[in-house]
Amino acid sequence: MTFTDQYLAPTFQGLVAGRVFNFNGGPAALPLPVLEEVASELLNWRGTGMSIMENSHRDKKVVAMALETEELLKELLALDSSWKVLFLQGGASLQFAMIPMNFAPDGAPCDYVNTGLWSDKAYKEALICGAGAKVAASSEEAQFTYIPREFDFSPGARYIYLTANNTVRGTQWHTFPAGTKAPLIADMSSEFLSRPVDLSNFTLVHAGAQKNVGPAGLTIVLVRTDFAETGKKGLPHLLDYRTYINSDSMYNTPPVFAIYVASLVFKWIKNTIGGLANMAAINTNKAVKLYDAIDKSGGYYRGTARVDSRSTMNITYRLPSEALEKKFLAEGQKCGLHGLNGHRSVGGIRASIYNAVPDQAVDCLIDFMKDFQAKNA
Amino acid sequence: MTFTDQYLAPTFQGLVAGRVFNFNGGPAALPLPVLEEVASELLNWRGTGMSIMENSHRDKKVVAMALETEELLKELLALDSSWKVLFLQGGASLQFAMIPMNFAPDGAPCDYVNTGLWSDKAYKEALICGAGAKVAASSEEAQFTYIPREFDFSPGARYIYLTANNTVRGTQWHTFPAGTKAPLIADMSSEFLSRPVDLSNFTLVHAGAQKNVGPAGLTIVLVRTDFAETGKKGLPHLLDYRTYINSDSMYNTPPVFAIYVASLVFKWIKNTIGGLANMAAINTNKAVKLYDAIDKSGGYYRGTARVDSRSTMNITYRLPSEALEKKFLAEGQKCGLHGLNGHRSVGGIRASIYNAVPDQAVDCLIDFMKDFQAKNA
Repeated sequence: MTFTDQYLAPTFQGLVAGRVFNFNGGPAALPLPVLEEVASELLNWRGTGMSIMENSHRDKKVVAMALETEELLKELLALDSSWKVLFLQGGASLQFAMIPMNFAPDGAPCDYVNTGLWSDKAYKEALICGAGAKVAASSEEAQFTYIPREFDFSPGARYIYLTANNTVRGTQWHTFPAGTKAPLIADMSSEFLSRPVDLSNFTLVHAGAQKNVGPAGLTIVLVRTDFAETGKKGLPHLLDYRTYINSDSMYNTPPVFAIYVASLVFKWIKNTIGGLANMAAINTNKAVKLYDAIDKSGGYYRGTARVDSRSTMNITYRLPSEALEKKFLAEGQKCGLHGLNGHRSVGGIRASIYNAVPDQAVDCLIDFMKDFQAKNA
Repeated sequence: MTFTDQYLAPTFQGLVAGRVFNFNGGPAALPLPVLEEVASELLNWRGTGMSIMENSHRDKKVVAMALETEELLKELLALDSSWKVLFLQGGASLQFAMIPMNFAPDGAPCDYVNTGLWSDKAYKEALICGAGAKVAASSEEAQFTYIPREFDFSPGARYIYLTANNTVRGTQWHTFPAGTKAPLIADMSSEFLSRPVDLSNFTLVHAGAQKNVGPAGLTIVLVRTDFAETGKKGLPHLLDYRTYINSDSMYNTPPVFAIYVASLVFKWIKNTIGGLANMAAINTNKAVKLYDAIDKSGGYYRGTARVDSRSTMNITYRLPSEALEKKFLAEGQKCGLHGLNGHRSVGGIRASIYNAVPDQAVDCLIDFMKDFQAKNA
């Protein structure tokens, strides 16, 4: 019996309650125990007699939950007291504007490393905001298949901006630039909490929740308070990081439900997984075996990222033809392997194996890949 | 047996599964059937094998759900094709900035009617954004206890801004200014979908979801597309209404879960309630009997808003002393009457009786008020 036959048989035990294996690029898989807890207390959160969605953000229990969420995150990331955790809205796209508006206003110089779609968007938004933004390195000439290691940083740059993990091209920074004069700012959306990261050279990190944290609609910002203080004054309140710092992210109503789900995910990482070192080991193991399957396919599957720049979160690869890719996606879908299509801008296959994607999902994908190759070589 | 005794008895049938009667000002009560539906499909949304939170916003089913939500809302509000429904983030506070940035840039004149905390915030944010904002009417001299009927509108004003319902002061516009040269823009957050509204003189309406629509983290904007086109060009993408219009609110990842809950609330209004005329009748009935209880208390309970300006959503009143108010709130809480405290800026009592607060909750509150007065007169 082939994998596909087995998978489609009613006795297959791979899935829980009709759920698929979810390889979405984001919004993406969440830990099943988190979803079960959310469902179980959706009508009555912690004995309040109300859904978490119906509780006031000024209620003591909600305020305590939000502060606890911040503390949990600081503990997971080993952040010291120079950092503040903020809960914003608007996604990375709003950060693309807020960062230059605050920290490179009126033509002030700032550097961008262009590793693909998202860093390019960030750079272009900085230009719209009137920043003196410069591309200090780029891998565009090689279709963003690698992370640059040589940089032409500007003297006096206020910050250096980079995208830590590139969901579209499947590349990731494994070490960040060291010894730079300007502080680093990073979009860590699609690798957030996937591994321990040394943030000593960073002053600001942003991450959309919809990859490794929770539902879309929450943007987590880590910022050093002394850096935030250097921001341009007189900005609209919601575009000034100080507004969030000074109010513990409660200047206006925050996305309470998303913060609540994030708190459960953070607890899951801390208590069930055992912290970021364990999370990284699990993630590396998943990525290594999937890349192995690609590399040992005799060229049938071809990874798109350069080996030294491969992402542990988004594994991007191609098949011998687009027709086979289409067939691969359709048959995978039938087998409960969902969301394997590459980003609409590049096509191909992309397996996003975020924190909440279980080992078993990757094993099933590898089995399916072998089976598919055998039948379609 | 008094109401309170009865209420505390185990046989009392007023509450479902330990839930309280929720008079929160916002985030606020949601319809119980909506919460039950969300809980029931939280692990597997519409047969996708994933939570709605795990589905991609680019997935056909999610795109269809968002478009259906827009259509439902246009149907409920009887909006013609000159309007577009947008799903934003950032709450009213971001709208306070986006509106002048788009429509009164570079000192262009615009008028604000100051009816309390939220319109004052909107006005001050317009000044921060460099608009030529003017207060065209105010009820500040009378502690915002009424809605002004005389206005000093500016020649050439780009728009007239007002807050349709004032949650803090318990006042509401029952008719909007007619025949103005400038179009009207309104914050309708706390009365959204509570009644049919003639929007023929409006060009933009915004409403935070967390009163009558869904969880916090979603801001609904209704805008006439031709008006949006007059907005200042060259703004950051997420601060330009055209970005949302041109992408059906999917330029970047929208708050999918909140849109989904909103879609269920809209269906509940349409199918269970029977539309906005019915919703208004139910809301008016609730408000009339609660104001009656206040007015017939012989002055023990005193409504804070002028009678002609009273809100049907937020019923604000005082007791003979702050000590009695404190006792009222504490005993009410014990009886399952939650969230009756006035806004922190004014104190007193506030019963927010939004769409999802059932008739029975208001009846219980009235019984409790009579009981409390009898014991504490």
